[in-house]
Amino acid sequence: MELDLNCDAGESFGVYRLGLDEEVMPLISSVNVACGFHAGDPRTMRRTVRLARRHGVAVGAHPSYPDLVGFGRRPLDATPEEVEDDVVFQVGALLGFCRAEGIRLNHVKPHGALYNAAADDAAVASAIARAVRAVDPDLFLVCLSGSAMVAAAETAGIQHVEEAFADRAYAPDGGLVSRRIPGAVIHDPGPVAERVAMMVTEKRIRAIDGTLIPLLAQTVCVHGDTPGSVEIVRAIRARLSQEGVAVRAFGPREAVP
Amino acid sequence: MELDLNCDAGESFGVYRLGLDEEVMPLISSVNVACGFHAGDPRTMRRTVRLARRHGVAVGAHPSYPDLVGFGRRPLDATPEEVEDDVVFQVGALLGFCRAEGIRLNHVKPHGALYNAAADDAAVASAIARAVRAVDPDLFLVCLSGSAMVAAAETAGIQHVEEAFADRAYAPDGGLVSRRIPGAVIHDPGPVAERVAMMVTEKRIRAIDGTLIPLLAQTVCVHGDTPGSVEIVRAIRARLSQEGVAVRAFGPREAVP
Amino acid sequence: MELDLNCDAGESFGVYRLGLDEEVMPLISSVNVACGFHAGDPRTMRRTVRLARRHGVAVGAHPSYPDLVGFGRRPLDATPEEVEDDVVFQVGALLGFCRAEGIRLNHVKPHGALYNAAADDAAVASAIARAVRAVDPDLFLVCLSGSAMVAAAETAGIQHVEEAFADRAYAPDGGLVSRRIPGAVIHDPGPVAERVAMMVTEKRIRAIDGTLIPLLAQTVCVHGDTPGSVEIVRAIRARLSQEGVAVRAFGPREAVP
Amino acid sequence: MELDLNCDAGESFGVYRLGLDEEVMPLISSVNVACGFHAGDPRTMRRTVRLARRHGVAVGAHPSYPDLVGFGRRPLDATPEEVEDDVVFQVGALLGFCRAEGIRLNHVKPHGALYNAAADDAAVASAIARAVRAVDPDLFLVCLSGSAMVAAAETAGIQHVEEAFADRAYAPDGGLVSRRIPGAVIHDPGPVAERVAMMVTEKRIRAIDGTLIPLLAQTVCVHGDTPGSVEIVRAIRARLSQEGVAVRAFGPREAVP
Repeated sequence: MELDLNCDAGESFGVYRLGLDEEVMPLISSVNVACGFHAGDPRTMRRTVRLARRHGVAVGAHPSYPDLVGFGRRPLDATPEEVEDDVVFQVGALLGFCRAEGIRLNHVKPHGALYNAAADDAAVASAIARAVRAVDPDLFLVCLSGSAMVAAAETAGIQHVEEAFADRAYAPDGGLVSRRIPGAVIHDPGPVAERVAMMVTEKRIRAIDGTLIPLLAQTVCVHGDTPGSVEIVRAIRARLSQEGVAVRAFGPREAVP
Repeated sequence: MELDLNCDAGESFGVYRLGLDEEVMPLISSVNVACGFHAGDPRTMRRTVRLARRHGVAVGAHPSYPDLVGFGRRPLDATPEEVEDDVVFQVGALLGFCRAEGIRLNHVKPHGALYNAAADDAAVASAIARAVRAVDPDLFLVCLSGSAMVAAAETAGIQHVEEAFADRAYAPDGGLVSRRIPGAVIHDPGPVAERVAMMVTEKRIRAIDGTLIPLLAQTVCVHGDTPGSVEIVRAIRARLSQEGVAVRAFGPREAVP
Repeated sequence: MELDLNCDAGESFGVYRLGLDEEVMPLISSVNVACGFHAGDPRTMRRTVRLARRHGVAVGAHPSYPDLVGFGRRPLDATPEEVEDDVVFQVGALLGFCRAEGIRLNHVKPHGALYNAAADDAAVASAIARAVRAVDPDLFLVCLSGSAMVAAAETAGIQHVEEAFADRAYAPDGGLVSRRIPGAVIHDPGPVAERVAMMVTEKRIRAIDGTLIPLLAQTVCVHGDTPGSVEIVRAIRARLSQEGVAVRAFGPREAVP
Repeated sequence: MELDLNCDAGESFGVYRLGLDEEVMPLISSVNVACGFHAGDPRTMRRTVRLARRHGVAVGAHPSYPDLVGFGRRPLDATPEEVEDDVVFQVGALLGFCRAEGIRLNHVKPHGALYNAAADDAAVASAIARAVRAVDPDLFLVCLSGSAMVAAAETAGIQHVEEAFADRAYAPDGGLVSRRIPGAVIHDPGPVAERVAMMVTEKRIRAIDGTLIPLLAQTVCVHGDTPGSVEIVRAIRARLSQEGVAVRAFGPREAVP
């Protein structure tokens, strides 16, 4: 059995440092690299792609609404055409750095408010899927499991993987529990690792009300922004190793640098 | 005989419109498309690449220092590493739109203060040449004729073309006369067309002091920012037609969309 | 009788020119100056404040969501605290130029999507009113007539004026007819001037369904972005002159530079 | 005897945190607040001004060239008019927050590459001095001791203070030793405190070649970006206390919030 662990990185900007990219990179199989709209600048993108190459981590673009001061977390009422072109721009820019470092660009995962909009709004999801296909029809789109993004990828005729979140509680209907609800985020490494193991071995998860629900995920999102989150990734890897699950990027073998 | 006519375009931004792109595009063979650092935004880049495709014009990137408010005209003391990564970013972003529109990216021509720095400073020129090679070793670098950019392209092992300016006076040493000197810019279509014809048929030009000097140029820069400049391009084309010179992009035939 | 005519200006940016500020400035009594978030840069702000001073036009700030590429027209889900601080920043920046030119800053009018949000959402309107009061409790807030902004200004204890739109159709309930509805914008100078005259002399207007509705407005918004819109302002002024209505800024006499 | 200790702060941006503002604020008497061009955003400016108010620290603006990605450290060939208007904008924006927090804006100190340019180039220094006077003729300009800024302030007719650097080596001619020279920056708290004590009590300092040179400084620049730099500030304060020197902002008593 195999599972991809993906993590956002390259979210520094200029002199500002954010994220423990050096620490988390050896532990993951895919990285989502910020492209300058919510974080990241050309120097940071170069450094992050180079770091991924050294660790054999598959590289994806992490496009956002244009909102550096808001870190791409604020919903913006952009048209589908604006979203499409913003994504082409950002994916292209990262493609430049992948070429410069001699590796393949493997996937695209929208960031923050754009990810949330794409999960709910078919027009936004379709705009993103069209942009991804336009830049490279072999790119994978990373989709919230069961969301509008999956249908958009299928309609556009591009490959996709469904994503689950290691540290987030799920509602009985399979949706993510809002971060505003107590218990929505799980901070303890043991239980998080246990949940990831169940996702991959049983294809289901225990929802916040205790019921067991099905959950299909080819990739699981982890975090590298704090020492605690890196600790969680280590616990997940140890547990997956016990279960005989290999941590490996989706996509073609040659995607791994 | 053949000559490339190149022109900057895609220099609008958001609601702001700059340049008569629709008027000049049918008259040129290569276009330098702004990539967001001095002008241009994703919507404008898409629109400009699409327009070039419709007119069979070869597309190049027009990277700049990051200075939107100064239109990339102000020298900035960036390190060669910063320049290299800024150029990779911008060329990659435009590559995304070329792929989206199904055409080949053909060349890179630095903009404004970055062009001037590259013409004089070998470290800046080399940084640009490395960036171009890194994104795509088949790209051409457009270089000020006889400048440091030519040597940088040769050292980097990438193709280049040498550029002359249709409406600019030349010093006896082959350099451009500073815009601050009276007579540095020629505004009359007839004389400009005459000069371009001499460049291509005689490989030389009359300098500001009246002497004839050699000038090798595979591409001539024209402008599309005012009705008068478009008129000049029409005059150049008419004159080149009389001389039996075809206006055609450099590079492989398949570069022409 | 008196009426204020207000107009947006200073919406150029760097080399980009937008709006016929020179043409419209002699015709209006108040100007709303862009502060860099949707348009405007320090040079443009200086030039615009200076132009207003020369024509004796009262100056106001025209703050926006931070969205240069979208010209501040796209709703952004900013928190009230973010809106408040964004408005303090922009009003303060314009205050700097008013001091530099030796004139009084007279009012604040939110721009585009921020204006629309403030008209509907009490939290946004209150955030703006608090920001205005914080920078200078003598500033006027320009409010959409009858909207949430009026209540917010009253709660904050700052002065306000209610605004009507010269060229927009009104619904029977007093709201603006959406621009998507045919007939929402009136382009003919004669009818527009007639409507403004009725607003000021009868304190009412004919709604899109033909009914006469009350409309209280101390200021009427006009446009200076096209030759046609400047023509409309001339027609309004001519008609107001016939009616014996003076065009004059609200606020203290010393607000007029 | 009295001495002002000034420190840069408010250099966070959006989610990015930079500088130990909370730790250093109780130790200083003046703070230079970033205004959005090299660092800082409206939320950060508000937070920083509020923090200064709570600690009775005098507030100044810290304007920069527009270069967020380069943190204002890269020389930019801006015209004096551009510098003047950029400074008016930034000082005005911070003035907005000072008014919002009910305190006086006390001084202006240029940042990074703009400070260095102003120290050497009379045209840049004069542009800054004119901008400061234009916004508020009672503001102090913080000048590198003995530099072109001093003359510019005097010509403009504004107040100024001369600044020394606690942790920098001085050349025998009174200039700062370039950071590229070994020994240019002193990291040990004891020697730094000793140097500051000598500056204030003897009005001179030991240059890098061992000679004693005169140095007049009404304010000394300290840093709050690392735990080590905060430790140095503590050592300076302890030593000044031993010498009976009070740490106090320059300017009127009412400048201290």
